[in-house]
Amino acid sequence: MDINQFVARSLGQWRSQRSAHHLIFAHFEAVKSVIDIVALAPDDASVLALCKDYDIDPQQITSPFRMSWEGESDWDDDRNEELKGTTVLVPVPDLSFANRGKLLRDRGYAETMAAVGEYYFTEDGIFVLETQYDRAAAEEKIWFVNPNLRFRVSTIKTSDGNGVVTASFSSEIRALKSQN
Amino acid sequence: MDINQFVARSLGQWRSQRSAHHLIFAHFEAVKSVIDIVALAPDDASVLALCKDYDIDPQQITSPFRMSWEGESDWDDDRNEELKGTTVLVPVPDLSFANRGKLLRDRGYAETMAAVGEYYFTEDGIFVLETQYDRAAAEEKIWFVNPNLRFRVSTIKTSDGNGVVTASFSSEIRALKSQN
Repeated sequence: MDINQFVARSLGQWRSQRSAHHLIFAHFEAVKSVIDIVALAPDDASVLALCKDYDIDPQQITSPFRMSWEGESDWDDDRNEELKGTTVLVPVPDLSFANRGKLLRDRGYAETMAAVGEYYFTEDGIFVLETQYDRAAAEEKIWFVNPNLRFRVSTIKTSDGNGVVTASFSSEIRALKSQN
Repeated sequence: MDINQFVARSLGQWRSQRSAHHLIFAHFEAVKSVIDIVALAPDDASVLALCKDYDIDPQQITSPFRMSWEGESDWDDDRNEELKGTTVLVPVPDLSFANRGKLLRDRGYAETMAAVGEYYFTEDGIFVLETQYDRAAAEEKIWFVNPNLRFRVSTIKTSDGNGVVTASFSSEIRALKSQN
């Protein structure tokens, strides 16, 4: 599995069930959402802007894409908070190691700010993404169970990487084939 | 990571949050439980009985243990079903591949019957266990985030291995050090 295959398999619409475990309070949160992942042209204005922000040569990038999501949480039944967002993601493969690279993102999960993460693939085909924020660190493991089902395990840690604050698990079922 | 290290790190008492995703109905289930994992002697009567059932030479086994759990599900609030059980597990390392083997179990997760699974470790230290039952197949991935936190992702598939019926995620926090 390389980053181009991984992005290609991810394109399309997905129906996601996400369970978050807030570990300190042993609290459960359940979120249902719809996720759309679409390919972007390497010279899309949003892609070029992100490259410029991180001082990356656009020649070095591959398979940029946009991810959008819209969901509902059970966290507060009265409020029934709507979770909605969109982010541009730009892989920058490592020149020396085919299974590693950076992932630029114009908005993070843990904090609503731009971020650059480090990714690698395990021999088992699991995509692992580690992102450092100012006051937190995030790790995501994403893998395909089959072409129409992918799993995502995310952890939000304190910035020293030791304390895990939130663990979450998403099962994502393909709703529509990509039209890219 | 080998099976002896993995079992040694697993000994003790764990407080588990488990979220099950019933994929066909997009239903969430939340379970809290306490899990106790204790080492057994290689010549414990329950271990020898399991070896005999599967025609395994007790000289080939390593690090047998007992896992017990007691939990509460939110599946039906009226009933508040109690989930309680205990099982003996006996690793049988492969003679040719250090990171592979069989795991004998006197009672399975997916069905209340004895089972033998095949395990291996990935280079990333993830323990992967695959178990075939008569009418279903189960896969578990278990890994340690740190010595006091482990994650477990389980899938129950149709026996042909294609259809995934249930996906579940457990975060397990160490409650007590093992006294073994």
